[in-house]
Amino acid sequence: MAIITLTTDFGSTAGYVAQMKAVLLRRSPDSVLVDITHDVPPQNTTAAAIWLADTLPWFPSGSVHLAVIDPGVGTSRKILVGRFECPNQSGINDQHFIVGPDNGLFSLLNIVDAWHLDETAMRTVRNVSNTFHGRDLMAPAAAAIAGGIPLSELGERRIDPVRFPLPKPEHRSDAPAGSTEIRGKVLYADSFGNLITNIHSADYPSGHTITEAWIDCPKESTPILARPVATYGDATPGELVVLWGSGGRVEFAVCNGNAAERLALDVYGADSRSLPSLTLRLDDSTDRRDAP
Amino acid sequence: MAIITLTTDFGSTAGYVAQMKAVLLRRSPDSVLVDITHDVPPQNTTAAAIWLADTLPWFPSGSVHLAVIDPGVGTSRKILVGRFECPNQSGINDQHFIVGPDNGLFSLLNIVDAWHLDETAMRTVRNVSNTFHGRDLMAPAAAAIAGGIPLSELGERRIDPVRFPLPKPEHRSDAPAGSTEIRGKVLYADSFGNLITNIHSADYPSGHTITEAWIDCPKESTPILARPVATYGDATPGELVVLWGSGGRVEFAVCNGNAAERLALDVYGADSRSLPSLTLRLDDSTDRRDAP
Amino acid sequence: MAIITLTTDFGSTAGYVAQMKAVLLRRSPDSVLVDITHDVPPQNTTAAAIWLADTLPWFPSGSVHLAVIDPGVGTSRKILVGRFECPNQSGINDQHFIVGPDNGLFSLLNIVDAWHLDETAMRTVRNVSNTFHGRDLMAPAAAAIAGGIPLSELGERRIDPVRFPLPKPEHRSDAPAGSTEIRGKVLYADSFGNLITNIHSADYPSGHTITEAWIDCPKESTPILARPVATYGDATPGELVVLWGSGGRVEFAVCNGNAAERLALDVYGADSRSLPSLTLRLDDSTDRRDAP
Repeated sequence: MAIITLTTDFGSTAGYVAQMKAVLLRRSPDSVLVDITHDVPPQNTTAAAIWLADTLPWFPSGSVHLAVIDPGVGTSRKILVGRFECPNQSGINDQHFIVGPDNGLFSLLNIVDAWHLDETAMRTVRNVSNTFHGRDLMAPAAAAIAGGIPLSELGERRIDPVRFPLPKPEHRSDAPAGSTEIRGKVLYADSFGNLITNIHSADYPSGHTITEAWIDCPKESTPILARPVATYGDATPGELVVLWGSGGRVEFAVCNGNAAERLALDVYGADSRSLPSLTLRLDDSTDRRDAP
Repeated sequence: MAIITLTTDFGSTAGYVAQMKAVLLRRSPDSVLVDITHDVPPQNTTAAAIWLADTLPWFPSGSVHLAVIDPGVGTSRKILVGRFECPNQSGINDQHFIVGPDNGLFSLLNIVDAWHLDETAMRTVRNVSNTFHGRDLMAPAAAAIAGGIPLSELGERRIDPVRFPLPKPEHRSDAPAGSTEIRGKVLYADSFGNLITNIHSADYPSGHTITEAWIDCPKESTPILARPVATYGDATPGELVVLWGSGGRVEFAVCNGNAAERLALDVYGADSRSLPSLTLRLDDSTDRRDAP
Repeated sequence: MAIITLTTDFGSTAGYVAQMKAVLLRRSPDSVLVDITHDVPPQNTTAAAIWLADTLPWFPSGSVHLAVIDPGVGTSRKILVGRFECPNQSGINDQHFIVGPDNGLFSLLNIVDAWHLDETAMRTVRNVSNTFHGRDLMAPAAAAIAGGIPLSELGERRIDPVRFPLPKPEHRSDAPAGSTEIRGKVLYADSFGNLITNIHSADYPSGHTITEAWIDCPKESTPILARPVATYGDATPGELVVLWGSGGRVEFAVCNGNAAERLALDVYGADSRSLPSLTLRLDDSTDRRDAP
């Protein structure tokens, strides 16, 4: 019994996701299929890469992860089959398998082995469409991996997969002594309208107490202040707060409200330079007690 | 093989639901995961409580139901693990397990045993986030119950769970002889825009024939009349009708249309006193033949 | 272990889909439940029929397909239990079972045996609602089929199921020699806004190279030209293109955009005569190399 997860930008209408599941169940009848999300904004590989990195490591070792956000389908872009490692809660390294277009979708994971899929060998179906390799090539590859076929048998040649960088936080040199000042970016808004940033607790081992935070809004002349709290419930309804979220990232939230709507921020721009900016001060003197 | 159901207000973007499923499958690999809905309006524990009460009893005895609508996460609110009973179609009492914040989510079910989760014992993960106890504490508890661990071993102390009341229908004393006149409330609109009310057939054993019904619209000076029918197909397209719905509740519907949009009603107010009102006349002389 | 698929217009709120799954799991605990979609536009049996026809054949032989788009529930409309055949990728005929209202939902599949469900025999539940036969009659029937009960035991009498026609493409007699000119209709828009048409490659064995294509927009005085390409990635961002899609149908798409929004087309009209029209020229001299 292998777990196969699915992540796409196909939405919930028509039958595209179900067609992939049908192919998986034909070829790997005992697999357990789990949806990550099918509501990645269309063609938005950046949002998908973040959501995959924040979610896939929670699954058991040996899981197979199929992700199809594939604007280049049918062109010269190749299909990636690979393996990433990540330490689990016991500190042991889990192994996960990945299948998807080689377009950076898995950029934020620690890929230790990657191959370009031998598409000819996978073309066991009579017709491979030009527009749906998720169903016709990647789902068969995922089912093969779930069935124990080694990557080296599926792959054409070992590769260094396409990666794209996320915008990195910048440290401000003019921060007061004993504190760290960071300029970051809002990466995406979740379903609650919480604004998730590129500032991750793993990068700040020396202290996690947020002392001040503000966010730039195109529609406002001055940055908007947010009050640091430990959890949503510490805020008063309607208040804009900032906290360490469950994925280890700093996030901005409106208690019982929607921060993305409140601040009228567009966080799904194709160009990551257009993502909203924020500034954060951390108190260096605190220990990790407040860490998420 | 245990069934574990999931109900949240997490929506379909990002990976929050999948992270909970990953934790469940790590700890209870043989469980069958079933989504109730992840589109509870954010923080709306009232809507969730109704949907849970109308849906959970359909599942087989022994199912574990995890519900995470949790605006108080990280505050002093406790986590509930418990058991409810309900008669199945054969008249035998089924047993169901529940896990969720102790905030009234399960108010409308017949809870026969309830404990506050011993969170310390559950903190087997290295870091428990302040904002996602659904993943870090409740999912592990649900997996433990699915694996046969008794509630008494998971619980810290036996409790009387938080309950909130639904607005109750009022009987009008000035109804004509032989009839019952009831003032009720619209509880929610479903995906069709059908308006589901707090008038339940179980409360009216003596007669179920609706003879008249009207609904108050803030935008109209007089109440809007609806024609009583037995099923949607008895109406003409576009007509506003009233009937006993599949959950045993009176509902208003527009045939091939959307009653909530037509009447411009907002049914997800935080304050249940603001819910739309309706009036209904039942004929007391009829027997139960028309009951749903 | 039987696969049971579910297709409805119930949306993602409330618990209707979960109630059906609960009934299925009570009666067929080993079945694997797979969602096709629950976002069929309300009461739109035409959209559902197309999505079912494009998706169900991908599932393994022996699957049971439950579809509940049922505006006539509770009226004299009957419930269909049946079987369709379709050749799989190996050319062998697969057998699939279907359960749903007899209202044309399965019109586009090759039904080889069909019965009206004996509803009396299915009424083993104490109360059958007037408005939710999907849960109270069809789910029990699907579970029975998954358990191996023959259709003849579930059926009341063998029938010729209700079918409705899709608008058929028309051939233009004034096309230039060596080419085929076709007038077709847009059937639906998928989640990407791609416009899927009624022109299917199976109907044009002699040649599949699209040489010209244009689409009628109510808001424009002249038809809009689309450039023929082999796949989305061959277009420049924002360009309107036309291609053979993954379901074998001609589709119009905007690269990295939404064609339905761009052209302001409404494709879910109740009356199929109101569907948007398009014109296509195929080059008869090409062989099938370009076929999907």
